[in-house]
Amino acid sequence: MINTLFLPELREMLDEDQTQELKEFCTALHPAKTAEFMEGLNEAEMWQVLQHASPSLQAEIFHYFPWDRKVDLLRTQDDKQVATLVTSLPADDAVDLLQEVEESRVDQILVLVPAADRRDIRRLQSFPEGTAGAIMTTEAACLSENYTLKQALEELSRQAERLETIHYIYVTDDINHLRGVVSTRSLVSAIGKPEKRLGDLMKKDVVTVNVRDDQEQVAQCVAHYNLMAIPVVDDQYHMMGIITHDDVMDVVREEATEDVQRIAAVEPLDDSYMRTPVSVLSWKRGIWLTILFLAGLLTAFLLQSYNDELEKHAWLVLFIPLIISSGGNTGSQSSTLVITALALKDVAQSDWLTIIKREALMGMILGGFLAAIGFGCAIMLAPSVIAASVIPITVLLVVVCGACTGSMLPLIFQRLGLDPALMSNPFVAGISDILGLLIYVNVSVLVLR
Amino acid sequence: MINTLFLPELREMLDEDQTQELKEFCTALHPAKTAEFMEGLNEAEMWQVLQHASPSLQAEIFHYFPWDRKVDLLRTQDDKQVATLVTSLPADDAVDLLQEVEESRVDQILVLVPAADRRDIRRLQSFPEGTAGAIMTTEAACLSENYTLKQALEELSRQAERLETIHYIYVTDDINHLRGVVSTRSLVSAIGKPEKRLGDLMKKDVVTVNVRDDQEQVAQCVAHYNLMAIPVVDDQYHMMGIITHDDVMDVVREEATEDVQRIAAVEPLDDSYMRTPVSVLSWKRGIWLTILFLAGLLTAFLLQSYNDELEKHAWLVLFIPLIISSGGNTGSQSSTLVITALALKDVAQSDWLTIIKREALMGMILGGFLAAIGFGCAIMLAPSVIAASVIPITVLLVVVCGACTGSMLPLIFQRLGLDPALMSNPFVAGISDILGLLIYVNVSVLVLR
Repeated sequence: MINTLFLPELREMLDEDQTQELKEFCTALHPAKTAEFMEGLNEAEMWQVLQHASPSLQAEIFHYFPWDRKVDLLRTQDDKQVATLVTSLPADDAVDLLQEVEESRVDQILVLVPAADRRDIRRLQSFPEGTAGAIMTTEAACLSENYTLKQALEELSRQAERLETIHYIYVTDDINHLRGVVSTRSLVSAIGKPEKRLGDLMKKDVVTVNVRDDQEQVAQCVAHYNLMAIPVVDDQYHMMGIITHDDVMDVVREEATEDVQRIAAVEPLDDSYMRTPVSVLSWKRGIWLTILFLAGLLTAFLLQSYNDELEKHAWLVLFIPLIISSGGNTGSQSSTLVITALALKDVAQSDWLTIIKREALMGMILGGFLAAIGFGCAIMLAPSVIAASVIPITVLLVVVCGACTGSMLPLIFQRLGLDPALMSNPFVAGISDILGLLIYVNVSVLVLR
Repeated sequence: MINTLFLPELREMLDEDQTQELKEFCTALHPAKTAEFMEGLNEAEMWQVLQHASPSLQAEIFHYFPWDRKVDLLRTQDDKQVATLVTSLPADDAVDLLQEVEESRVDQILVLVPAADRRDIRRLQSFPEGTAGAIMTTEAACLSENYTLKQALEELSRQAERLETIHYIYVTDDINHLRGVVSTRSLVSAIGKPEKRLGDLMKKDVVTVNVRDDQEQVAQCVAHYNLMAIPVVDDQYHMMGIITHDDVMDVVREEATEDVQRIAAVEPLDDSYMRTPVSVLSWKRGIWLTILFLAGLLTAFLLQSYNDELEKHAWLVLFIPLIISSGGNTGSQSSTLVITALALKDVAQSDWLTIIKREALMGMILGGFLAAIGFGCAIMLAPSVIAASVIPITVLLVVVCGACTGSMLPLIFQRLGLDPALMSNPFVAGISDILGLLIYVNVSVLVLR
């Protein structure tokens, strides 16, 4: 929804070149709201308005534009203007944006960016997506341990505008090894002792991540230690950059979405649903759909081999969809519960015996209840009460089996080093279809003969 | 996994009452690690070690204990000791913990807590779970706008130990109305002008949440505005407390887990999988399983009404599970993609036409591919090639219908004011079973007659 409330005023200000009013518009509101009010403007107008904000505020407002508008803005403005913008953005955001611009133009733009920023951007570009290196920013406050608290506070004051976060000062030696960390909280607490040195105040036990670590690991670490930002180091413990809590929040959301998509048997999308082309979506869905379809074909051949039985007792056919879906639904409940519990570290591999006992018990309770309902209906459709008893017996067994396989598969996949979310539900669906039919036919044979 | 590395040393320190060493153990490491090394101790030992840390550090270390150990510690120690601990904890954490203690003992403990803290705890206890009021903390830095920056910094320094976060100073008037906010960043930036007043520096456009707002709304707001903490106000704009980014991260994880569970047709659990009793789990799964089972029973009666057709062409039975699961799998892919896109605000109600066009197209691509495989197998099992063509036609139609209903149901549920995650997948499963059979039987009638 585009907010058009201020559009006429904004356009008038631009037409009449009301510099003072435009400056006030840029500074008065939270940058997120400023961005919202600007969304109705075209790219050239947006650009004109942005010129009235300081570079750091420009970057902040720009941050809140929808992604498509950001890309459009980059595409329509000339290289020099884009270079100014890129320079003011945090390096990690600049890298993300430049991915949307053709390779040849990226070079033309980067030539116009100051050498230090260009180097940062080039370095970040070299880290593979999904690693700590790719989501870190290089703008951290790094000071020597010989700084007094007074000097540190002054230095922080000078850099505050430029830094992505000022919650920690990282203490480094002269070859950029990370030595310790001082939180702004302890700096502020110690404000009465301005002559103390950073080296006296710093915590040496710093929680760090390696530049090659997976972003999910980073997110877990930040959440576990309750950090505002985490420093990223290389193998020699050189300070490379920091990852801030807002980037971590994005990772948490991204990973949660991926898990949900995997559970529904879709290969996770790299981009949003609307921006992913139909061809890519078809491919990411098609892989699993085909695997599941092949499992489904097995059920056809399985039924074929029990043809005689089915022809003798034609009424059995009526309950095939019911039996299969009971097992599948129970199984997907169990596997989802175990997958989410594994992700939250509520359960571990060693709990498998407890889990299977609980699932078997739940399977009996749930299966028993459904069996009772099923029996009531089966009496109406089956030729005799004894024949009808095939249905409740099968439902009970299928639900118990569904609960047990559904809960064990994620543990098995994790043990094998595979992502439990990736594999479990499609497998549970496939296995419960086949297992369900096998149980059904065998129970029928036992009861009806 | 319990870390036993330091256990012998710790026990020796306790036995020999080595105060100095124990103090160092408490302060040297990150509190999360200190907590980890203490996990192997029994409750009495844990308590003894904690006595060597300052109250605020005690609270920090305690924060990182596993939930069960926290509760055990509370249950085994006497009221006076628990009261000391409760006083040092942030009020929101204290409330969560006290929920685990019997009502009568809570009163005994709270009597021993200083009046101000007791009042905070009592107030937080009065807000319903899942609201901003229930997850906020009352320990925020609130100062008058007449403070100079120098005074403000000194005051912040004095309170830094006690406050949950020092990233923002909230400016309030004498009846506690929220007037503005000053970030520590701008305070530090302006350190060269110590005589300026907070009132000059503050931003008046404060992003707030109401004390009764839903916690998911709070999380979205914090993420959208990229905040470290958000102030909570009542209807009269009185400052009630703040919600910090780590509490928001917990909410994001919690809500993501709930969505995943809903998608798998489980009523979200209030507690972890392992701590939820089997009876509660059975109930939370049983509701949806029963609804799905009843939908499954409909398929039995539906098949019954097409009995003649099925008896004439018995081979049709073989493909029933395949047809049904193709529709169900495609539908659950589509609904999950739309549910996650809605949650991330990638799509809106107004996009429905684009979505259905994309889904129909994808349905044709995926359905066409599966139909080709299905035709190959059907030729082997059906009496003639013409008869076999029932399968590909049905698969194509079922997949297209699955994609369209799966993508539209979440939008419809959202439009009706219902949670799209809650309803969609069970409905998709039920509808695709029935729709699949209807399409199958009607296609057969048309082709085979």
